[in-house]
Amino acid sequence: MTFTGKQLTTQLDADGTLTLQLNDKTWDAPKPGQVLVKVEASPINPSDLGLLFASADTENAAYSPGKVVAKMPDNATRAMKARHGMAMPAGNEAAGMVVAAGEGAEALMGKRVACVPGSAYASYAYAEAAMCMPVEASAEQAASSFVNPMTALGFTETMKLEGFTGIVHAAAASNLGQMLVKICLEDGIPLVNIVRSEDQVKLLKDLGATHVLNMTDADFMPKLIDAIAETKAMIGFDPIGGGTLASQILTAMEAAASRGAAFSRYGSSEPKKVYIYGALDLGPTILNRAFGLTWDLAGWLLTPFMMKAGMEIVGRMRARVGKDLTTTFASHYARRGSLEDMLTKDAVAMYNARRTGEKYLAVP
Amino acid sequence: MTFTGKQLTTQLDADGTLTLQLNDKTWDAPKPGQVLVKVEASPINPSDLGLLFASADTENAAYSPGKVVAKMPDNATRAMKARHGMAMPAGNEAAGMVVAAGEGAEALMGKRVACVPGSAYASYAYAEAAMCMPVEASAEQAASSFVNPMTALGFTETMKLEGFTGIVHAAAASNLGQMLVKICLEDGIPLVNIVRSEDQVKLLKDLGATHVLNMTDADFMPKLIDAIAETKAMIGFDPIGGGTLASQILTAMEAAASRGAAFSRYGSSEPKKVYIYGALDLGPTILNRAFGLTWDLAGWLLTPFMMKAGMEIVGRMRARVGKDLTTTFASHYARRGSLEDMLTKDAVAMYNARRTGEKYLAVP
Repeated sequence: MTFTGKQLTTQLDADGTLTLQLNDKTWDAPKPGQVLVKVEASPINPSDLGLLFASADTENAAYSPGKVVAKMPDNATRAMKARHGMAMPAGNEAAGMVVAAGEGAEALMGKRVACVPGSAYASYAYAEAAMCMPVEASAEQAASSFVNPMTALGFTETMKLEGFTGIVHAAAASNLGQMLVKICLEDGIPLVNIVRSEDQVKLLKDLGATHVLNMTDADFMPKLIDAIAETKAMIGFDPIGGGTLASQILTAMEAAASRGAAFSRYGSSEPKKVYIYGALDLGPTILNRAFGLTWDLAGWLLTPFMMKAGMEIVGRMRARVGKDLTTTFASHYARRGSLEDMLTKDAVAMYNARRTGEKYLAVP
Repeated sequence: MTFTGKQLTTQLDADGTLTLQLNDKTWDAPKPGQVLVKVEASPINPSDLGLLFASADTENAAYSPGKVVAKMPDNATRAMKARHGMAMPAGNEAAGMVVAAGEGAEALMGKRVACVPGSAYASYAYAEAAMCMPVEASAEQAASSFVNPMTALGFTETMKLEGFTGIVHAAAASNLGQMLVKICLEDGIPLVNIVRSEDQVKLLKDLGATHVLNMTDADFMPKLIDAIAETKAMIGFDPIGGGTLASQILTAMEAAASRGAAFSRYGSSEPKKVYIYGALDLGPTILNRAFGLTWDLAGWLLTPFMMKAGMEIVGRMRARVGKDLTTTFASHYARRGSLEDMLTKDAVAMYNARRTGEKYLAVP
């Protein structure tokens, strides 16, 4: 039995031409351990945008039905040499119905699952059965049950694994940030939320968050130092990446750790760490290094974290997501559309802006 | 029995006035576990300069015999609030004769020791007996037997503890860098040296170094990528701190790790890490983040490293330094002078420039 439909691919050529388009495609029976999922809903996450468009100029791109042709900056084109000339599928996660099952995956046949195919912007997608989670919820409710929920839970697990006891989170009003607020409330983990507007302060306060700081306030830094001193939140997670925020967080941690302590030319000996887990700002990260010599800044990525955490922790995380899919881990979307709609200029302009609260759900 | 002499102190006041001066001082009998050392020779390391002058304006300071009064920039004055008004002694390490011993330290009486008093710019200094190493060598040969040798050995131990197999070292022509070249040759550890001039390339090549790259060369980056690909040197140590070098090292590591690998939107999954262990450039650290999400940038400091490494490793390191003090761990000085000379304008101008190969030895 074969299935036919469309699949979105993104191709970067050596001359900097980026082409996204829908192609007709046929799916055969899945391999052992895999299932074939009829995709019902798939979100566009920031991590998907890095593959779909990266830093291409979508403003001046050529849009036609089912096709976008854009120009990638030269340095980005060079940096992504390994993908030149390849038509790559995209779409990390989805929810959909299992329409065919490979050997060993027969139990999933006919069920709705949340899955992580990596090629979800399509009519159908192959997915690893071991990563599929059967769900009672609707496809829209289940579409974002992997990336954001596992990342938010991954932050609290990382905190515990590394011996920290409280978290600073930047761009905290995102879907992921709202999940983290709920998780930390449930688990009694002190959380300092950094947001960019008074509306976002209200949003998180309404969810029950204690510490919500507006980084555009004039007294943001002293407030951040106070909040960190109170919560002992010495591990931070920053999806912005560019600019000075990671440096400011480390500086505030150092100031909080040094309060009342004797002067040390090397700074406080209290461990302080910030993870950069995204690139909402593609500009350089600027560190003033006004935080002694006991500090750590690192990249955070879900897959290596899960490999380090191991099966037991990951299994516990997955079970929690399944149980609380429509409460703690609920996602919100500003727009829904077909694969064709996803490649229109106004849709791209909306979701590629990466604005908090403006998330797109593909419904093939 | 009491001993009299002079001690250098550095004091920063809240108004930004930095005062270094020599004070008359009397030393009484040392406490249990301590010795009193008559200081014969004490180097000025970059780590000492952070306490002595930090970013004060030494060019326009007022110099008088045994005294320097300089202005500290406002932001630095604020950042060092915890030391306001305190006359702090300085001088991490020294060699000298034990002239008095506290309870339990009698065996060191009358011996020349290498020691880590933290107040070595003085006629006498108290030192922990457990950190003293009796030496056969001259005072000048033994003066720098702690900070640089233990730091250089600390790099190779850090590499092993964290599972790396080769090292990138920046500002590699320093005394410390020359030690690291010799250590890595002795231990068969691949080392990529980054220097700033052809003279420095020749200096390290003459010591037997294989990979010595001049960062002012136009083809520095491709050469760095080649050297890292060849050596698998995925841990770096950078004493410069400011500027783009740490970012360039991570970028080169990423490029080397990605060679021949399939494209991944998140970059290579090979761990890559750079430690910043100094601040030869006090400017901000600029990261372009063109190195995926599997990376780590952290501060490195000798004392916390030794605490983490534990007594066995540290004991082994100390024994090696004692054995090879006049060979592998030999230091070179461009100028020697009394405590009075150390506070003259031309001496300060020379050692505070932190130029490679221009190190000052205080001989009280």
